Amino acid sequence: MPTTPSSGPTAQIGVTGLAVMGSNLARNFARHGHTVAVHNRTAARTRSLVDTYGEEGTFVPAESAEEFVASLEKPRRIVIMVKAGEATDAVIEEFAALLEDGDVLIDGGNAHFQDTRRREKALRERGIHFVGTGISGGEEGALNGPSMMPGGSVESYTSLGPLLESIAAKADDGAPCCTHIGPDGAGHFVKMVHNGIEYADMQLIGEAYQLLRDVAGYSPAQIADVFRTWNTGRLDSYLIEITAEVLSHVDEATGKPFVDVVLDQAEQKGTGRWTVQIALDLGVPVSGIAEAVFARSVSGHSDLRDASRHLTGPTPRTLGTNEAAAFADQVEQALYASKIVAYTQGFHEIAAGSEQYDWNIDLGKVAAIWRGGCIIRAAFLDRITSAYEAQPHMPSLLADKSFAQEIAAAQDDWRSVIATAVTQGVPTPAFAATLAYYDSLRAERLPAALTQGQRDYFGAHTYHRTDREGTFHTLWGGDRTEVES
Amino acid sequence: MPTTPSSGPTAQIGVTGLAVMGSNLARNFARHGHTVAVHNRTAARTRSLVDTYGEEGTFVPAESAEEFVASLEKPRRIVIMVKAGEATDAVIEEFAALLEDGDVLIDGGNAHFQDTRRREKALRERGIHFVGTGISGGEEGALNGPSMMPGGSVESYTSLGPLLESIAAKADDGAPCCTHIGPDGAGHFVKMVHNGIEYADMQLIGEAYQLLRDVAGYSPAQIADVFRTWNTGRLDSYLIEITAEVLSHVDEATGKPFVDVVLDQAEQKGTGRWTVQIALDLGVPVSGIAEAVFARSVSGHSDLRDASRHLTGPTPRTLGTNEAAAFADQVEQALYASKIVAYTQGFHEIAAGSEQYDWNIDLGKVAAIWRGGCIIRAAFLDRITSAYEAQPHMPSLLADKSFAQEIAAAQDDWRSVIATAVTQGVPTPAFAATLAYYDSLRAERLPAALTQGQRDYFGAHTYHRTDREGTFHTLWGGDRTEVES
Repeated sequence: MPTTPSSGPTAQIGVTGLAVMGSNLARNFARHGHTVAVHNRTAARTRSLVDTYGEEGTFVPAESAEEFVASLEKPRRIVIMVKAGEATDAVIEEFAALLEDGDVLIDGGNAHFQDTRRREKALRERGIHFVGTGISGGEEGALNGPSMMPGGSVESYTSLGPLLESIAAKADDGAPCCTHIGPDGAGHFVKMVHNGIEYADMQLIGEAYQLLRDVAGYSPAQIADVFRTWNTGRLDSYLIEITAEVLSHVDEATGKPFVDVVLDQAEQKGTGRWTVQIALDLGVPVSGIAEAVFARSVSGHSDLRDASRHLTGPTPRTLGTNEAAAFADQVEQALYASKIVAYTQGFHEIAAGSEQYDWNIDLGKVAAIWRGGCIIRAAFLDRITSAYEAQPHMPSLLADKSFAQEIAAAQDDWRSVIATAVTQGVPTPAFAATLAYYDSLRAERLPAALTQGQRDYFGAHTYHRTDREGTFHTLWGGDRTEVES
Repeated sequence: MPTTPSSGPTAQIGVTGLAVMGSNLARNFARHGHTVAVHNRTAARTRSLVDTYGEEGTFVPAESAEEFVASLEKPRRIVIMVKAGEATDAVIEEFAALLEDGDVLIDGGNAHFQDTRRREKALRERGIHFVGTGISGGEEGALNGPSMMPGGSVESYTSLGPLLESIAAKADDGAPCCTHIGPDGAGHFVKMVHNGIEYADMQLIGEAYQLLRDVAGYSPAQIADVFRTWNTGRLDSYLIEITAEVLSHVDEATGKPFVDVVLDQAEQKGTGRWTVQIALDLGVPVSGIAEAVFARSVSGHSDLRDASRHLTGPTPRTLGTNEAAAFADQVEQALYASKIVAYTQGFHEIAAGSEQYDWNIDLGKVAAIWRGGCIIRAAFLDRITSAYEAQPHMPSLLADKSFAQEIAAAQDDWRSVIATAVTQGVPTPAFAATLAYYDSLRAERLPAALTQGQRDYFGAHTYHRTDREGTFHTLWGGDRTEVES
């Protein structure tokens, strides 16, 4: 067993916090030939890791924080893998006290980017590089190659980047799914939006499923086949792939489709909610993501649902075989168009965050490092990268000609599917929200003019005119002349 | 002129901060026979108020904070009417230093309820009652009778309530539109949700307008007539009334309909956004309000809109005269049904906030005090009061039989209008979101089961079953047996 005793600084990287994610990340480093110092608050977990997986590479187990730090080459690189929140601050403080100028502390949890900004600033003043790093891909990704979104200083990436890139997932073209996102909280911000997009992606898939179930009248197994087919085309993605797996799974205990025995109350961990809350602060409309978050919370309100089952609505009319197949094709168009809009909204939020916090994020590279390892990995991310490479400063993904063309081709079916859902009482909040966003953006005139008129009427909030500069108010309570204010 | 010099405590109430809202509130107190101490940072404004409106009642002008406080009867009652934010903290500190046990400080601005909770706690420890009070109705309401939502201690309301009730708007049945909402931040919380509902109301009206314009082919003047007719029925409300006024107004400079010369970029001040952000924290789906907030921000993104005008979509097909009239009737049904849902979501948020912060808010009374003075005053609020009086703990307004019946009667038209909008490319995000919420709540099964299956697949997040208790995980990467976790 190549595990060395802890004598002198031999490890290139250290991982503290050896729950599944931390443990898998440590093994991933070791498997790639790096000597990995490992540490956990309770030492039994450290021993267990080395006992079980010691053969996979060179681990340096440490019982104490001091021993752990002493085992690391300088500049020291320590990945913290603990539960986000107050625990993180305590662990950071513990290690920061032992570090020196130029050392690098990496937070690989799902921290809020504002916490990361605060921590980065505080540690920078003490000479320590703090790298908030988004890591996507779950346990499996941590072990076999996650998508990694490190923030922090450029200097930290010089030292840390090659190590992270070595263990990150590789896209089909061999490029590592890891890049320096930008200063301080940029990495965790991008990871947050990644998760928000993931919520939207999953909700859209759920709506497509429900339509195939209720309107096309397909069984879960038949729908699994539909998703398998879709996965060979432009929707090719991890989430579509696993949807087919989940839908084709049969519950052993009952012999029923697995999806029919799972309680239909979705849970959430917070990053989707944050994505919407931060978007509201930034003034970015992310309606598709918001509807996905709301859909999960609706599903969980069993009291409201119980009190609402008596509400009147149509019963979906199941289609015949040929019609059903045609309808499934339309749903594919709707899903794809809505997906483009959901990503458009997410990338808009990243652009707005980058602008707000001076992060200078390369949106094309963000799409590129999501091509492998992460939950939303998908063939069409290549297209997003190309779009931003061609026009790095385009105000919206919808400004890209090829996406616009695809939506143009899809939109009749998109509209038809949503009209069907609305008419037949199948809830499609995210489909509908993304279409409304599309129609709002392309509208020549929006009712916002009426809104401004109302606001001026009841609150003297003033308005602008289309035909000349200035701020105006109409004397609604008087003779209704207009005054410049 | 009955204004008395500042000698000895003679004033029942004081108002500091004499911009339009504060000035109008002071005049309202004076007109109701109260002696009102008035104070402003720059004394010229105080003098100007007394010079101009001194005849309306008894004002006690004060140049300094000390003089102002000395002019008030004990327990002193001071209404602070300054811009929400840091200015409020400075003004509170200035006056708190001069007050005594049992005195009452009232913040009448649009403070965030968490700030109000913080301030109330700090002042309570110093023996001062702090009453965060939502005030709705704008300048006009402040002068002639606003809807008032005071929080704070029960004790403070004993001293303050009669004064506030005397100047508050009166509902048609004569009841004052003011009630003690609940402890600490309850008043500002309810005012926040009031504004969120106002956003939704205005957005729904805007969507109805756009449909009548684009699909029915009506002119703004014709649409004004439609709204006037609606205002005689169940939609009878201030916002419908002023919509007709705004739409019938003709721009003097151009001779065009006013609404056509107003720039269609809606602005916002923050309470709508807060309503959504707090709802997300509370796990309350407020999709109708969220879409209203997003619609304003979409309208303001002129860069995105400019980059999106090339996007493909249908051109609405204008209806013939008879069809148009029938369509307008359908739009009324849709507007009413969506409005019920928007209020349902807002009241759900108030109930959740009340639960979270132990406020014990009487939802029926909240609806009752919105019947007059405020922006969303509407005939149908009486119905909401009755519904909550009949079932104070119903989990949702949709659990009320009479609202459920109205939606049942409206829903065919509701669906038809949204299907038309979707098909013809008229954006109706709030109509669609509220319908999707309705259909989600009444759904027997939601695709949340698939979401849980996916989450278990990629993140081992576990799931519950419909047929037995426990938390389960399927070994997706293994033999796909199920384990209890």
